Amino acid sequence: MSPLYMFEKPLGMRDTLPELYEIKRNVRASVENEMRSWGYQFIATPALEYDETVGAASAIMEQQLFKLLDQQGRTLVLRPDMTAPIARVAASKLLKRNIPIRLAYSENVYRAQQREGGRPAEFEQIGVECIGDSTISADGEGIALMISALKAAGLQEFQLSVGHIGFVRKLFQQIVGTEERVEALTRFLYEKNYVGFKMHVENLSLSSIDKQRLLRFLHLKGQDETITAAFDILENGQGTEEVEELRQLWDIIADYGYEDIVKFDLTQVSHMSYYTGIVYEAYAEKVGFPIGNGGRYDGLLGKFGKNTGATGFAIRFDRLLEALEETEAAEPLYAIFFSAERRKEAFQLAGEQRASGKKVVLQDISGVHDLDANTKQYEDIVYLLGKSGKESMQ
Amino acid sequence: MSPLYMFEKPLGMRDTLPELYEIKRNVRASVENEMRSWGYQFIATPALEYDETVGAASAIMEQQLFKLLDQQGRTLVLRPDMTAPIARVAASKLLKRNIPIRLAYSENVYRAQQREGGRPAEFEQIGVECIGDSTISADGEGIALMISALKAAGLQEFQLSVGHIGFVRKLFQQIVGTEERVEALTRFLYEKNYVGFKMHVENLSLSSIDKQRLLRFLHLKGQDETITAAFDILENGQGTEEVEELRQLWDIIADYGYEDIVKFDLTQVSHMSYYTGIVYEAYAEKVGFPIGNGGRYDGLLGKFGKNTGATGFAIRFDRLLEALEETEAAEPLYAIFFSAERRKEAFQLAGEQRASGKKVVLQDISGVHDLDANTKQYEDIVYLLGKSGKESMQ
Repeated sequence: MSPLYMFEKPLGMRDTLPELYEIKRNVRASVENEMRSWGYQFIATPALEYDETVGAASAIMEQQLFKLLDQQGRTLVLRPDMTAPIARVAASKLLKRNIPIRLAYSENVYRAQQREGGRPAEFEQIGVECIGDSTISADGEGIALMISALKAAGLQEFQLSVGHIGFVRKLFQQIVGTEERVEALTRFLYEKNYVGFKMHVENLSLSSIDKQRLLRFLHLKGQDETITAAFDILENGQGTEEVEELRQLWDIIADYGYEDIVKFDLTQVSHMSYYTGIVYEAYAEKVGFPIGNGGRYDGLLGKFGKNTGATGFAIRFDRLLEALEETEAAEPLYAIFFSAERRKEAFQLAGEQRASGKKVVLQDISGVHDLDANTKQYEDIVYLLGKSGKESMQ
Repeated sequence: MSPLYMFEKPLGMRDTLPELYEIKRNVRASVENEMRSWGYQFIATPALEYDETVGAASAIMEQQLFKLLDQQGRTLVLRPDMTAPIARVAASKLLKRNIPIRLAYSENVYRAQQREGGRPAEFEQIGVECIGDSTISADGEGIALMISALKAAGLQEFQLSVGHIGFVRKLFQQIVGTEERVEALTRFLYEKNYVGFKMHVENLSLSSIDKQRLLRFLHLKGQDETITAAFDILENGQGTEEVEELRQLWDIIADYGYEDIVKFDLTQVSHMSYYTGIVYEAYAEKVGFPIGNGGRYDGLLGKFGKNTGATGFAIRFDRLLEALEETEAAEPLYAIFFSAERRKEAFQLAGEQRASGKKVVLQDISGVHDLDANTKQYEDIVYLLGKSGKESMQ
């Protein structure tokens, strides 16, 4: 192996320099404040978890996990998502008290990448989980809060696409029969390979009516008219309950006043295998991937011994930043350049200016080698040098 | 190996539940704001670095590093401290522009633990680095900023203990001669084993005058009188420069008005092997370990190809929290319990209350199974149920 250049970082790892750091800080605060105002309580979990428990409960592919051995010989994983760790905490410590509980987080997650210049291997997710509430109101709240949080971040143009994994499974089950055949069909949806889906359907040994139903399924996209169309392709009542949920969900979204932002896409399935019901993804102009996704995962808490319903979403913070218009630059930086004779005066002036909210650098003039280069970064510099008076330079 | 209980976390890993999360958030903001107001700019670096570069530059013992292999077969480490990663970023991206630069960070670092119930394996450090400034003013600024940041956090009773690694090395070198013998003496100081130090000195083949000098060295603790005592044990001018630095430092600390908080302890050596000059540690009542430490590390940037001076400190955030008096609990949480008939009214009321700064949970009454347990967590609940009027219950 060739030696590393001293500045190299592992594949997919990135530094955040001051300007971007401040932008992130401001946007993060807006999103977090919105979640807080909806009564979601923030928690944190460790970066490392046992592979055998939380690793196994996560929905991330094996090859994307960063794994290591601890000194006791157990396999650890760098958390690939936050939903499984939060399910662990909720089941072990919080669900004893009152249910439902509303939790939030803002943390980095880790997914190993295969290629240089590809996706980030460490990225921030800001999300919420509503645990112990199986009502459709909880699903609606997740969607409405995701919209409100994205608006609070300053995002102008975006849409939420809503599907129902339970509906898809029941419809496919009723038509194609076996779990294996359901999986085959679902995989085309996951890959958004609709041509492949159609060709696959043509080759299935089904009645022409059932084939028509599967092809009509592909068009279940739009607003509330989608619900009627979905009812129309059902048979034997299989899936009625799920479509009824979508109808109720639409009414809730209307009560929030968010009908213009939400669209149904019943062909939407998620890569998170733990989802069981209503799922959703947020899309913004200019960004090719969802900037956030969420859904109901009624089976996951059971893996930690508490059989209860849950729903939540995560915002991909890096993609949200990409989708935002240029945001404001950092606040101006002021400086006081001093020599030893007037040091105490400089300290006092800096103290006063800082107390008034300014950011003020104190700089011993003897530490400055390139005065021109050094002064450029400051909005204004006060020089307190030698024994003379005070001078301000732009 | 016995199977894991489903809730277990890796050794030294901890969850942060809502109440502690909010306390941390408030204290962190106070410390960060102080650093910002002094003109320090925050940056972030990845959790994983190459062992060959940043891992090798860090001062943390091999057995405390979490290591893993990436898919290219390189060894990665979970960063054990932030100083080495920041040196990498500064040398590769920032030092090209203007020097000196002032950087800050607030990040988790990782150190593997051997025992159950011991120290945390993941903990937060909030710190600053002033890079490219070799003046004693930069050392003084680090000490003054650490004091100001701890005060901003609300810490009442604490002290800063200041030493000088360069002074210790030069004095020992002049008396015992070889690097090996210097190391042997220094190790006793690191372990704070003064009895061992004395016995070791007695057994060295030195003149009684030199033995006396080493024993008098152990008493170099106190305020500015320590400087005179330090001058007194020098010979052949070896160490004069370093004691002169301490004298200048004391004047700077006096100009900041922090003489009451700072004490010299010239026997202080740090476990961070990269320190070269003035070093310091903060101690608070009730906490057995330093809540922060810092110092000058003029050799580290050179490992990344930029030979320049630097100084900085890190606050151990968990220990700072331990040292703080009980801080305020979280803000109150309000709730609106609704049924479908009055959902829209509930959404509107929640929107108004949230806009006024309240934290308001919206709860579908059909998702509540244990009303008594559920209502306890809220300051006040508004019930919007059925078709009747509005009711508020404590």
